Amino acid sequence: MPSVPNVKLNNGKEMPLVGFGLWKVNNDTCADTVYNAIKVGYRLFDGACDYGNEKESGEGVARAIKDGLVKREELFIVSKLWNWTSANRSVLFGISSTNKSKRNTKLQQHANTTPTQSFHDKEQVKPICKKQLADWGVDYFDLYVIHFPIALKYVDPKVRYPPSWQDADGKITPSKAPIQDTYAAMEELYDEGLIKAIGISNFNGALILDLERYCKHVPQALQIEHHPYLVQKDLVELCKSRGIAVTAYSSFGPQSFVELDMASAKSTELLFDNKTVKEIAEKHKKSPAQVLLRWATQREVAVIPKSNNKDRLAANLDVCAFDLEKGEIEAISGLDKGLRFNNPLNYGIPTPIFA
Amino acid sequence: MPSVPNVKLNNGKEMPLVGFGLWKVNNDTCADTVYNAIKVGYRLFDGACDYGNEKESGEGVARAIKDGLVKREELFIVSKLWNWTSANRSVLFGISSTNKSKRNTKLQQHANTTPTQSFHDKEQVKPICKKQLADWGVDYFDLYVIHFPIALKYVDPKVRYPPSWQDADGKITPSKAPIQDTYAAMEELYDEGLIKAIGISNFNGALILDLERYCKHVPQALQIEHHPYLVQKDLVELCKSRGIAVTAYSSFGPQSFVELDMASAKSTELLFDNKTVKEIAEKHKKSPAQVLLRWATQREVAVIPKSNNKDRLAANLDVCAFDLEKGEIEAISGLDKGLRFNNPLNYGIPTPIFA
Repeated sequence: MPSVPNVKLNNGKEMPLVGFGLWKVNNDTCADTVYNAIKVGYRLFDGACDYGNEKESGEGVARAIKDGLVKREELFIVSKLWNWTSANRSVLFGISSTNKSKRNTKLQQHANTTPTQSFHDKEQVKPICKKQLADWGVDYFDLYVIHFPIALKYVDPKVRYPPSWQDADGKITPSKAPIQDTYAAMEELYDEGLIKAIGISNFNGALILDLERYCKHVPQALQIEHHPYLVQKDLVELCKSRGIAVTAYSSFGPQSFVELDMASAKSTELLFDNKTVKEIAEKHKKSPAQVLLRWATQREVAVIPKSNNKDRLAANLDVCAFDLEKGEIEAISGLDKGLRFNNPLNYGIPTPIFA
Repeated sequence: MPSVPNVKLNNGKEMPLVGFGLWKVNNDTCADTVYNAIKVGYRLFDGACDYGNEKESGEGVARAIKDGLVKREELFIVSKLWNWTSANRSVLFGISSTNKSKRNTKLQQHANTTPTQSFHDKEQVKPICKKQLADWGVDYFDLYVIHFPIALKYVDPKVRYPPSWQDADGKITPSKAPIQDTYAAMEELYDEGLIKAIGISNFNGALILDLERYCKHVPQALQIEHHPYLVQKDLVELCKSRGIAVTAYSSFGPQSFVELDMASAKSTELLFDNKTVKEIAEKHKKSPAQVLLRWATQREVAVIPKSNNKDRLAANLDVCAFDLEKGEIEAISGLDKGLRFNNPLNYGIPTPIFA
């Protein structure tokens, strides 16, 4: 089994530098996928309410614990507080279909809809976290993350779960919950021990600088889109200076978004096909994917790739046992073009958090 | 006198689309410059505590009123709440020197210093606003703006004014004032009538989306760096959708920052030399500066150019009497490269608000 180093969080806890991302893992195969990933050596699982597969992920975990593959305390389970979702959430945020043209049509349709629905209201944070813990079948999350700095109106899970884009009256209503209130509710979960670390995701520098003025506990982790086309050097450095661990999502860049038929992804060279990446991969006798992951982990940025393929599952985990040269890291960083794919605006959702 | 249209703010007040920016206007010539600008037809003056010339600006205004050139109610006076400043504030933020190499040395020295000092603490906002009103010699500001979403420790004006980079004990200490608290103090000024509109500056989309969840009054105006190399289309659209008027600063792009010897400005083609801009200017028999200003105002983005030259002063004001074609506006917008100059990091100040 490949050895995966930990990164030490600012509260003394340790987080594996490589984990398994559960976005777009199909419900029908999810439990098996998680079980197999544990078997291969994965210890961190990055889930979310929004991915719509927390129950199945929990089933995989429970079976692995039952079979003696792993103990709960050896796992690092991540979940996220959702903010809004869309009528076509299956297209945008998870449950996958194999029909690409159908997806494309849905993406078009979706452009006319507006986001809604929030668990950011401070009185909703604990109940939904507890529901998510119950779905996973665990007593605590190792890390619980504010998924987006977006807050839209709450829908009672009894009315609809996973949430859809309309509120209970069929209307679209923004929530008035400021991030400060939502964050205070996250700190309560932390103080009560329901979560062992607080995370934020899709936050930028200005939000973090504001947050550190009102928070009681500086967050332990930030999760961001991060790949050679979107390096975000200043943001990563800000986090380092605050002891906030950075986790990259979409480490392979356009790849994930080509699957969603996103125009900007389709018109961009895949990182797997990029000359710089390929040459470095050949030199090290590794795959381009492994090089992309090592480029992150070697700079202490954690990664959470996903694969349904057993060999790739193992290969993705084995990305800390070789080292890139300084010049190679710089060459890959030099591919930066500030190109972001996972922007709500790209899904037609009018919340310009990256403007 | 050129006719300058107003933009209607979301509280019913009107703001001129073209004004005079007081950044880097020398103290010794400031009163005369303001007086002459009023004579030429300027009605909006964009000042700030940080520019270090509010008293002199007020002198120019007082003389113009005394001479019957204008009435107070015909003017639109803008000032700003400062957040921090630096040992070499004269280099970075205003009081100019003509010695370029001296500036360069100072910019280098400055890279080793750290920001401080804040009027963002909610109990400090009203006293400093009142001091600034007294400096200008007016009873109210037409617009008072949070200069940056940065808050560092307060220094009593009795100890040092304009503020310097150390606090009263000679230390550098961040303030704990969240934007929410500072903004609430701004709203108090507004409710009391000391300011007729609330502005924010250097805020991004995520901060504005958070602000609108906790504010009592949506801000009337946002001031941002905005020129063809930094178009910020999504941010401008967000503001339009909220009725927040956008004012561009540094409309000429690198120009202002070449004067400060900033490397990224010196290595970028001046917009005045850009082929697209020049060709459009020649076609309309206008200067490149006028085309750049018209490119903004025609899209309802207000501008605040500055000039010490009397002819250019008049020419800059005369930028609403001709129209660019749609294709010309698009061609200029097409020069966008997300290139920002006025980033605290470019001055060595470790507050990555644009990360």
